[in-house]
Amino acid sequence: MTTRFFDVSAAFLLEEGGTLDNVRVAYRTWGEPRSNATLVCHALTGSADADDWWQGLFGPGRVLDPGKSFIVSANVLGSCYGTTGPASTKPERLSPYGPGFPTVTIRDMVRLQAALLDHLGIDRLDLVIGGSMGGMQVLEWAIEYPERVDAIVPIGVGPSQSPWSIALSEAQRSAIKGDSRFRGGRYRPERPPRAGLATARQIAMCSYRSPQNFNARFPRNGDLASFDVQSYLRYQGDKLVDRFDANAYLTLIAAMDTHDVGRGRGPAAEVLGRVRTPALVVAISSDVLYPVAEVAALTASMGNAELAILDAPHGHDSFLVETERLNELVVGWLESRVTNREPRVASPR
Amino acid sequence: MTTRFFDVSAAFLLEEGGTLDNVRVAYRTWGEPRSNATLVCHALTGSADADDWWQGLFGPGRVLDPGKSFIVSANVLGSCYGTTGPASTKPERLSPYGPGFPTVTIRDMVRLQAALLDHLGIDRLDLVIGGSMGGMQVLEWAIEYPERVDAIVPIGVGPSQSPWSIALSEAQRSAIKGDSRFRGGRYRPERPPRAGLATARQIAMCSYRSPQNFNARFPRNGDLASFDVQSYLRYQGDKLVDRFDANAYLTLIAAMDTHDVGRGRGPAAEVLGRVRTPALVVAISSDVLYPVAEVAALTASMGNAELAILDAPHGHDSFLVETERLNELVVGWLESRVTNREPRVASPR
Repeated sequence: MTTRFFDVSAAFLLEEGGTLDNVRVAYRTWGEPRSNATLVCHALTGSADADDWWQGLFGPGRVLDPGKSFIVSANVLGSCYGTTGPASTKPERLSPYGPGFPTVTIRDMVRLQAALLDHLGIDRLDLVIGGSMGGMQVLEWAIEYPERVDAIVPIGVGPSQSPWSIALSEAQRSAIKGDSRFRGGRYRPERPPRAGLATARQIAMCSYRSPQNFNARFPRNGDLASFDVQSYLRYQGDKLVDRFDANAYLTLIAAMDTHDVGRGRGPAAEVLGRVRTPALVVAISSDVLYPVAEVAALTASMGNAELAILDAPHGHDSFLVETERLNELVVGWLESRVTNREPRVASPR
Repeated sequence: MTTRFFDVSAAFLLEEGGTLDNVRVAYRTWGEPRSNATLVCHALTGSADADDWWQGLFGPGRVLDPGKSFIVSANVLGSCYGTTGPASTKPERLSPYGPGFPTVTIRDMVRLQAALLDHLGIDRLDLVIGGSMGGMQVLEWAIEYPERVDAIVPIGVGPSQSPWSIALSEAQRSAIKGDSRFRGGRYRPERPPRAGLATARQIAMCSYRSPQNFNARFPRNGDLASFDVQSYLRYQGDKLVDRFDANAYLTLIAAMDTHDVGRGRGPAAEVLGRVRTPALVVAISSDVLYPVAEVAALTASMGNAELAILDAPHGHDSFLVETERLNELVVGWLESRVTNREPRVASPR
C-alpha cells in the first residue's frame, strides 16, 4: 500500500474566513474498501502512515484490523507529508506558501477529512481514534458529524488546549522565530531554521515524556558537565529537523492552540453533553501536558463516555509507546459494546 | 543598606579542579552584626537583595527579622549581580570571562559563602534558608558545614537535579546557544543573544508555574490566533534579557544540573541520613519541576527533617508568591523548636 492523493476540486473554505485553492490530501487505506470505515487521526508530527507510528494497534484481532474493517488515515491540512501546507507550492506560483499560509484549525482538518471520505464513498465511521492532536480531531468528528460516527476513542486530550499548553507552544514559537535563519518564515528550503526547530522539539519532548520516564531512562552518571539525557534530547531535536518543515510546525501548533470544542458553539460542557456517540476517553496516568484531571473532566461532560486510564510512566507519549496495553483497553471496550449493544431501532420522529 | 563587596584574597579553588583569581562577592546584611546569623540563599536569577525578592519573609516577628537576628545574603558565584561571573572582567585583562568561565557547582557557591562569613566574623548560622537553587545551597551547607549550622529550611528541591529538570535545562541551553548572536558565548555586551535568552526564560517560566496557575490566570479568550498567556510569556522573556547575562545564565543552570548531594560522598540516602541538623523541608503542592514526591523522598532520607507542604496553585514559584503562608509555616516550625528544645549539652567523646 502506498500513499495516494485526493485533490479537492472546489476552493476549500477555512474557519477563519479565507479559502485555500488546489488543496491536496495525502492518505492511505488498509483493507477492502466499503461504505463504512475506521478513521485514524495523527498527532502533531505524524503522517498518514498509521501502520508505522501505530504499528502495535494494527493486525488481526487488534483495534486496526484490515481483515475486518476498511481503515483510513490522512495527513492533516497544514502538515508537510503530502497534504497541502506551508511548504507546498502556491497554485500558479513557484514559491511555497511559507509564512503566508493561513491559520488552520482542528475543525478545518476534520472538514477536509470529511471531504476525503465523501470522495472515497464512505458514509459511516465505525470508529474514529487518535491521540493528542489526533484526539482533538476525534472530538471534532463527534461534534460536527454525529450522524456519521458510531464510536470514538480520543486519547490524551482535553476539551480545549489549556493555557499552560499554549504557553509551551509559545516557547516553541519563540525558539523557531528567534532563529536568524527563520527570516520571518521566508527561509530557503535548503537553509531552514535548524537550531530553532531543534530547540522547539526539545521543549516539546520534555512535555511529551515525564519526570518518571527521564529519571528512569537517563539516571545521573556522576559527571559534572554532561548527562545522558542531554544527548538524547539533542538527538531528538536534530532528528525532527531532518523530517519536518518549520512553517508547518508553526501552523500545526497554532492549530492545536485553537482547539476548543466550545468556540462559537456555547459552553464546552453543554456542547460535549450533546455528544451521544459512544466514547472511550483514554487518559495517561503520567501525562503532564494533558493531565488525567483534564481528561477526566472532558469525559464527565460527555453524554455517553467512559474514562479509561492508561497507567504508564512514559508521559503523554505513552499512547505511542504502550501500544500493547492501549490496544487491549480499546479492544476490550469495543467488544463490550458489541456484546451489550441493543438492536438498532429507527428513532421515532 | 546597600550592597557591599568582599574580595577573596587567595585564589579560589573550584570543585572541578581549577582556580579563580580575584573573586569578588556582592552581599547585603540586615540587622546588627553578631557572631551568629541567618543566611538567605537565592534562586537562579536572584541577587543579594533578599528583602526585595523575599519581602514577605522580612519584618518584625517574621522568619527574617533584622530586629532579632543578623541576616546575610550573597549573590552566588557565576551570577551577574556583583559577584564574579562570566560577565566579570578577567584579572589583568580588559575582556570578560565569557564562555571561558569555569564550571561552578552548588558546593563552590557554598564554599564562597563560607569564606564571606569568615570574613564577617560569623561562626554559626541559626538558620540557612532558600528555595530552588537556594535550596540546593541550603542542603550543601548542612552537609559541608554541619558544625556551623543550627537549622535549615530547603524549599522546592530534591536530593539531586532530576534528569527531567536537566532536560529542561538542555532545551534552554539549546535556545541560547542556537541564537546566532551568541557566537559561542563571545557576544558583545551591547549585542547579547536576546532571542535565545528570552526563549530560555519562556521555557523556564512554564516549569516554574503550573497548569493550574496559567489556566486560572489566563483563561482562553476565544481568539483564534492570540492568547493572553502568550503576551505574558513574551513579557517575562524580554524582562529577563534586560537584567541578566546569557553566559551567567548558562553557568548557573549548569551548576543546578550538577546538584547531587551524593557526588563523591556515597549513596545520597546515606549522605542525607548523616545530616542531623534540624530541617524543615518545604514541598510545593503544584510544583512540576521538583514534585512533592521528590521532596518527600529527600525529607525521608534526612536524619532530622520534617516535611511541610505549601499548598499553593502557582507551581514551583509559589515560594516567591505565597510568602505569607510560607512565613507562617517556617515561623511555626522555628517556634516549636524553641519550645521543645532541650538544653544543649556537650556531646561525650
